[in-house]
Amino acid sequence: MPTLTLGRWHNIERMKITRRSFNTGVAAGTVLSPLAVRARSLEQVQGGGKRLGYCIVGLGRISMGHFMPACRMSQKSRVVALVSGHPDKAAKMAAEYNVPTKNLYSYADYDKIADNSEIDAVYIALPNSMHAEYTIRAANAGKHVLCEKPMATTVKDSQNMINACKAANKKLMIAYRCQYEPTNLLAIKLIREGRIGTLQAIESANGFNEKLGEWRLDKKMAGGGPLMDVGIYSLNACRFLTGEEPMRIEGYSTVIDHDGRFETVEENDGWSMRFPSGVVASCTTTYGAGMPGFVRVHGSKGMLHMEPAFAYEGIHLHATIQDQEPIDQIEEQKDPDQFVREADTFAECVFENKEPKTNGQEGLRDMQYMEQIYKSAGRSLD
Amino acid sequence: MPTLTLGRWHNIERMKITRRSFNTGVAAGTVLSPLAVRARSLEQVQGGGKRLGYCIVGLGRISMGHFMPACRMSQKSRVVALVSGHPDKAAKMAAEYNVPTKNLYSYADYDKIADNSEIDAVYIALPNSMHAEYTIRAANAGKHVLCEKPMATTVKDSQNMINACKAANKKLMIAYRCQYEPTNLLAIKLIREGRIGTLQAIESANGFNEKLGEWRLDKKMAGGGPLMDVGIYSLNACRFLTGEEPMRIEGYSTVIDHDGRFETVEENDGWSMRFPSGVVASCTTTYGAGMPGFVRVHGSKGMLHMEPAFAYEGIHLHATIQDQEPIDQIEEQKDPDQFVREADTFAECVFENKEPKTNGQEGLRDMQYMEQIYKSAGRSLD
Repeated sequence: MPTLTLGRWHNIERMKITRRSFNTGVAAGTVLSPLAVRARSLEQVQGGGKRLGYCIVGLGRISMGHFMPACRMSQKSRVVALVSGHPDKAAKMAAEYNVPTKNLYSYADYDKIADNSEIDAVYIALPNSMHAEYTIRAANAGKHVLCEKPMATTVKDSQNMINACKAANKKLMIAYRCQYEPTNLLAIKLIREGRIGTLQAIESANGFNEKLGEWRLDKKMAGGGPLMDVGIYSLNACRFLTGEEPMRIEGYSTVIDHDGRFETVEENDGWSMRFPSGVVASCTTTYGAGMPGFVRVHGSKGMLHMEPAFAYEGIHLHATIQDQEPIDQIEEQKDPDQFVREADTFAECVFENKEPKTNGQEGLRDMQYMEQIYKSAGRSLD
Repeated sequence: MPTLTLGRWHNIERMKITRRSFNTGVAAGTVLSPLAVRARSLEQVQGGGKRLGYCIVGLGRISMGHFMPACRMSQKSRVVALVSGHPDKAAKMAAEYNVPTKNLYSYADYDKIADNSEIDAVYIALPNSMHAEYTIRAANAGKHVLCEKPMATTVKDSQNMINACKAANKKLMIAYRCQYEPTNLLAIKLIREGRIGTLQAIESANGFNEKLGEWRLDKKMAGGGPLMDVGIYSLNACRFLTGEEPMRIEGYSTVIDHDGRFETVEENDGWSMRFPSGVVASCTTTYGAGMPGFVRVHGSKGMLHMEPAFAYEGIHLHATIQDQEPIDQIEEQKDPDQFVREADTFAECVFENKEPKTNGQEGLRDMQYMEQIYKSAGRSLD
């Protein structure tokens, strides 16, 4: 299995670099979190190539806990500016990331990023309903946009985002992390090489038990329930694993728990898809139960099972293939390495004037399919 | 976890009986297959209670390899007659099961079972399209009917079977083996006791790679493709695990491989269901890939995963429950023990005049849901 071996070696090499950095890059007695140690040491080792200057829009868990630490570890990306409605939080993060005060913006003066040449791109990590506005304003300010998924809360907004970036001649990438993650990429490779034969059927699920009070439970901010937030991983995976667009898609959305959480968004979705080749896929998602993200692909010669399939680290692929040794690969990299890849891939697209694989069209398609699921379930995105 | 402990002890007790029988019941030097040894020795140990006299209708893999050996092991069931179109095969099986020549029937003289008081019931193990006719003729001959799944190939035939058995005042049970299997029953028990909290979502799949030339690939005999034959396990499991009837159900049926196998039946089905409580379920089935039978149930407090879920032996349940030790149970009994339970359950229903849990209505419901899936997929059962 040369593929597996290669993948493992690559990961081991990367781990070695990290560990060496750990031993050489930190002064004795310095108290830093392991992540910070690793990040800073990598920064020192890797030195100063050209790095995309990101303005972070929204200081929440994903930006502060994952994307910004990733930029610090990266050779191609760095944090140069922040947009936040909380000046204290912004000042604290600015200090940690050496962001000068002049590069701190409120949502009101966000458009002034146009005048800041240090900012190459924005990373939009806001509640879903704000993605469109802040993407369009960034494009109008002459900045490239890396936007979290789901792209927006309506198909119309998604199209407007694409139009604005196109008109401004700026790149737009949707942060489909898994499409840059090595174990997911190995799954795609095994499928494309025909290792599991002709694809026939896929099952996938992804969900979690959401807490009362989270913005994800407010349709005004989230656009929809678990389908928009986590079910989208299954939907997107079925598309990138088959390499096809579903020609029919239908599902159901339900609320079971009347405990105040599901006043505006659904609690569960189940849906099936039919792809042009004939592959069928059936998925579920929930905000009402711990639901480990998995995807299982059945081919005429074998089966791939990934679980966890969509997590920040530890993606595990197990493939059983007719007349061959099983393939078992666990992503050996640690969070936030997936975000490093994502940030750097977008940086490369900008530097080399390449269209991102997960561009606006890719995001728009998921929006259209989610709209179809909601429509068939008697709900609406608007 | 008293439930688990009980289940395990029960299995261990059963295994002990089997092993003791093995040591005491066989004459030295006798050459018998391990299964035959176990069966005969059990027969000796358990002695001569009242046993339901089954007439086996159709000598195929399931009757010769599973149901008939089960009857031999059973305390409540026995094989007393055979119906076959192959006199040689019938003679051979008759010799093995001590069935007198007068109790061998062809399909033409099948109705004469009416005159044979040794026959209490028939076990129908014919191609699906023959289930209705041979059930109705058995009822008209005054015999109880245990019929393999799927019940029939059309909803109308299924209703006719129910009507015929009712008119003759005879029991009709559909052979939903899993509904009598201890690990599946433990899953139901854990769910009903609220151990995994409020149910939210289910995924299930079941399929295999079928060979060219099998009767299952001929719609005239099978009625439909993998949905009718193996997808029905997932459908039925979603129903017995929730204890609910789906209020909406829709799916897709496709053919991918144009290699002569799928001229009349579909190759793949994917479907989703919405239950009255709000539980959503998404399933797939195939004749084009090895697809291990599994079912995964998500509740607010935990998750059940069964895999294999529908096999003849070794059913494996793993439950992860909030703040509790995980439950892991593997069915310790061996094939054909599940068939013993099935045969004996029906015997009890006859002896004690009880309605079988998996009666005609239970079978009819699956037929109706499968018809809905086919209809939504643009196919038809007729």
